[in-house]
Amino acid sequence: MAYQAPVRDYQFLFENVFKTDQYSNLKGFADADSATVMAIMEEAAKFTEEVVHPINITGDKEGCVLNADKTVTAPKGYKEAYKALTEAGWTALSGDPQYGGQGLPHFVNTAFSEMLSGASSAFGMYPGLTEGAISALTAGGTQEQKDLYLPKLISGEWSGTMNLTEPHCGTDLSLLRTKAVPNGDGSYRITGQKIWISAGEHDFTSNICHLVLARLEGAPAGVKGISLFLVPKFIPDADGNPGERNKLECAGLEHKMGIHGNSTCVMMYDEAKGFLLGQENEGLKIMFYMMNNARFGVGLQGLAIGHAALVAANQFAKDRLQGRALTGPKNPTGPADSILVHPDVRRMLLESRALIEGGRAFLTWVSLLSDLAKVAEDEAGREKASDSVSLLIPVIKAYLTEKGLKVTQDAMQVHGGSGFTEHFPASQYMRDVRITLIYEGTNGVQALDLVGRKLPSKGGRALQAFLAEIDAYIAAEEAGSIVPAYIKALKDTKAKLFDGTMWLMQNGMGNPDAAAAGSMDYLHLFGLTCTAYMWARMAKEAQAEVSAGSTDPFFDTKLKVGRVFLERILPDADAHLIKMKAGSEGLMELADDQF
Amino acid sequence: MAYQAPVRDYQFLFENVFKTDQYSNLKGFADADSATVMAIMEEAAKFTEEVVHPINITGDKEGCVLNADKTVTAPKGYKEAYKALTEAGWTALSGDPQYGGQGLPHFVNTAFSEMLSGASSAFGMYPGLTEGAISALTAGGTQEQKDLYLPKLISGEWSGTMNLTEPHCGTDLSLLRTKAVPNGDGSYRITGQKIWISAGEHDFTSNICHLVLARLEGAPAGVKGISLFLVPKFIPDADGNPGERNKLECAGLEHKMGIHGNSTCVMMYDEAKGFLLGQENEGLKIMFYMMNNARFGVGLQGLAIGHAALVAANQFAKDRLQGRALTGPKNPTGPADSILVHPDVRRMLLESRALIEGGRAFLTWVSLLSDLAKVAEDEAGREKASDSVSLLIPVIKAYLTEKGLKVTQDAMQVHGGSGFTEHFPASQYMRDVRITLIYEGTNGVQALDLVGRKLPSKGGRALQAFLAEIDAYIAAEEAGSIVPAYIKALKDTKAKLFDGTMWLMQNGMGNPDAAAAGSMDYLHLFGLTCTAYMWARMAKEAQAEVSAGSTDPFFDTKLKVGRVFLERILPDADAHLIKMKAGSEGLMELADDQF
Repeated sequence: MAYQAPVRDYQFLFENVFKTDQYSNLKGFADADSATVMAIMEEAAKFTEEVVHPINITGDKEGCVLNADKTVTAPKGYKEAYKALTEAGWTALSGDPQYGGQGLPHFVNTAFSEMLSGASSAFGMYPGLTEGAISALTAGGTQEQKDLYLPKLISGEWSGTMNLTEPHCGTDLSLLRTKAVPNGDGSYRITGQKIWISAGEHDFTSNICHLVLARLEGAPAGVKGISLFLVPKFIPDADGNPGERNKLECAGLEHKMGIHGNSTCVMMYDEAKGFLLGQENEGLKIMFYMMNNARFGVGLQGLAIGHAALVAANQFAKDRLQGRALTGPKNPTGPADSILVHPDVRRMLLESRALIEGGRAFLTWVSLLSDLAKVAEDEAGREKASDSVSLLIPVIKAYLTEKGLKVTQDAMQVHGGSGFTEHFPASQYMRDVRITLIYEGTNGVQALDLVGRKLPSKGGRALQAFLAEIDAYIAAEEAGSIVPAYIKALKDTKAKLFDGTMWLMQNGMGNPDAAAAGSMDYLHLFGLTCTAYMWARMAKEAQAEVSAGSTDPFFDTKLKVGRVFLERILPDADAHLIKMKAGSEGLMELADDQF
Repeated sequence: MAYQAPVRDYQFLFENVFKTDQYSNLKGFADADSATVMAIMEEAAKFTEEVVHPINITGDKEGCVLNADKTVTAPKGYKEAYKALTEAGWTALSGDPQYGGQGLPHFVNTAFSEMLSGASSAFGMYPGLTEGAISALTAGGTQEQKDLYLPKLISGEWSGTMNLTEPHCGTDLSLLRTKAVPNGDGSYRITGQKIWISAGEHDFTSNICHLVLARLEGAPAGVKGISLFLVPKFIPDADGNPGERNKLECAGLEHKMGIHGNSTCVMMYDEAKGFLLGQENEGLKIMFYMMNNARFGVGLQGLAIGHAALVAANQFAKDRLQGRALTGPKNPTGPADSILVHPDVRRMLLESRALIEGGRAFLTWVSLLSDLAKVAEDEAGREKASDSVSLLIPVIKAYLTEKGLKVTQDAMQVHGGSGFTEHFPASQYMRDVRITLIYEGTNGVQALDLVGRKLPSKGGRALQAFLAEIDAYIAAEEAGSIVPAYIKALKDTKAKLFDGTMWLMQNGMGNPDAAAAGSMDYLHLFGLTCTAYMWARMAKEAQAEVSAGSTDPFFDTKLKVGRVFLERILPDADAHLIKMKAGSEGLMELADDQF
């Protein structure tokens, strides 16, 4: 039941499916040839399985402690694991070499991050939040700020946080009250309360850099009056070392259903010294870099926890002897057969696997696109990749977390009664994964982002390119395909997505409620199309290997899992289309007091 | 966010939909005229809202404690609430008057039980398990045993438990090892370990009657060698009072994800004195009475917790001011609109409500059938009702718990970040409801029971009668229906169920794996058909009231919720049919080591 990192699956994705060696001429990719990347993956698996995973369950049981002096003690072993993480250079994997990073492509870091989050999602959040801070600083920091903070954040010597939410204001940032007053020396005094600040306070870095949204006096009302500040726990001295203790503290820890190993803090800022990032009143623009990074990371987390839960469920199903196969004993000399003989147990395990492996390919594809958005040779290529990433981020976030939850639910169900006890890991995975549907914008917010912002953005350019890519793939593969069932399934699913898109255009323009009412079903349809595309590409490569005589069971298994995707996952597409076309009237016709 | 019992909904079901007064000639129903039942419902609401619900959250946080002397202390307030429960006569509601019960029909007790479980599922399990013990004793006890135990169990002075599971043996009872040795005086010595014994030890009754499955020496192997014993914590003395302490004890409490207020015990029997119930080696037959009762109760629990979670979500959505409606401010003088303005929030709340209200009607229908199975005037009527109950119990158990989980998930999602904290009730509802998909036979076991046992039983008589009833309803209502959309939807859904049934007959006979592979999707299709039938009947009555000029907003709301059922719940039927027809090959073709 211990964690097993999906190294072989990543090898297949990198070498067979996405052929990452084809990009060796691009910046960063030269150092990421297949052999190097797979050596990194092996080390990543070893590190996450052996160093990180052992503290996952104990961290859940112990949780974090807020001490009388307002410091926070993370669970036993977290500090040591974090030290090992930074010493091995894992936090610097994709960091800018100018600031001490290894400059490897994002896709390598994505694979490592899946392993880290799968081994322990609560632990993985500490460096995860720092990654967000790095992206915000990179996007909006001055050269001086970058020089001062980036090396320490990339090395993991310091960590970062995101401070958006206030008690009365989560999704709706226009309501935020934390205020900033200029000190006259270029710095500001920040005062206010922030809640649900992940990794807000802990005992394993010498400084914590809080990125805080606040409002300047006289700033425009609403989201146009929000500025972003960097508020370090210790104000760097002239040498850039942690100096004076800033006026901020952790005033409380949330009691949460899961991710107990991560400190979720109430943060109080009382005239704390802060430094503006970017321009006044333009904080949200930078924060969005951080949020996009975070949303991708949350989708990844949903997938990662799902994979970990599935590993546990597969093992449990093989070990648990109970009952007999309906077609006669399969383990006649034992007291009973393993529950793996039961079709419904296999259904749960294989549906889960089809979702996880399709989701992992989807995640890897988008991570590669985000590399191309930065380093593709020509501007047109960078723009196209950037468009796609922007379009697909809400789908990554919401679809992968919805399916991650389904997988952990089924993993628990495979465990039977044992799954409900805390002696087996299923309960923790379910409690941990549940937050991924909520934070960094609830999945409903992602669906609204998809239909309300991402589809119409730039005249629908990103969506058109996305659909064109799939059409081109089908056109190229259709005749003489070695996996025709997958091409047909992709064509059918994409047609439904197109149908849904047309419906949105015809109905959502005049009535935004109609688009919103169908947004979640549309997002699911989008996710199904993306993963049908991934499965078509994966099946083709696996079939090619089998046809060429490979006896590696990996390829045979891949095709069998793909079959389950076609037979038991894709049929949901129709229902999503029908439901979205029901429109908003049936939802909106009730008065408030009818709820 | 406090619990609100669904009194008005039950009034509608009893008076408008099922017209329970029509049965006034039947035993027990004479005392259950509509006015009396509604007076009981009002009291039940008051009791569960005011006495039971307040200890639900504290019970979750405190949990149960196993003391050094092996006694168990339930959370604060549980003992007092149990005393109030028994003193008010709630445990005796449907008990046999011969043994001190009030003799009211089962449907009345079902409604009360939903309120009890909704207010606190962990607390409700204590009397719930006793109900199971009563049904087993009624079915298999000698007159002497009934006279001794039933009055005390019905009054709640004593409680009961079910002891099936052992560490190596849950679903597969053929493996059980607990042994029974005759003492020569008609009693037996019981030795063994049982786990996951709900309400196995606590501090609020003067005796606990454990019903224990065990094996006599020399008994036939497998399930044909299992006997059922009544093993009281205190052996009744000559006067029937608790006497000598029996040799059994609680050796440990499970650490569980939810239902913390209920003591889930490891029970050790060390030559404990037990009394045979029924015949040697025929224990399972009686245990099945108890299990059927328990399975109905678990389906009820799934629904009840779902309702409670929905109440909390509705309230949260009304209170939470965040963002603005897409169509312009609805609360222009406030800082923001309530999140109820958002179509996707309404989607979650209304889909949940459509599931809960349809499920409640389904539960009420089956509870009435179980009354008719006992007291219908003629043998044919009793037999038909009994057939239907037997057929529908696995659907009640699995469908209502699956949907109960969906509802609690959406209730948490409506809460956003607050839902993941333990300051709001959403997390507890989700953690509590999760066990309902597992215990008393996992939902996969229910699906197998449906397709493998219940469909073919007695030549398929029960299924044929079920389909005939729906056909007859459609035939009678179709022409000139005032709710034609519901009749059409029922007809379509039933046609899919019929299609699925034919597929099972054609494919499952020769290949049991094919039937098992599709069993869960078939069960969902069955649940959708049952609830489509219920919604057709509810909509007709609501529409009739509206058409007759009723201004009671209840009827208008009912029709609007029904619309959501048609538009957003029923479209799943097709996908279930397609998935089940995929058959078993895709699931069974993987070797064990491919998992």
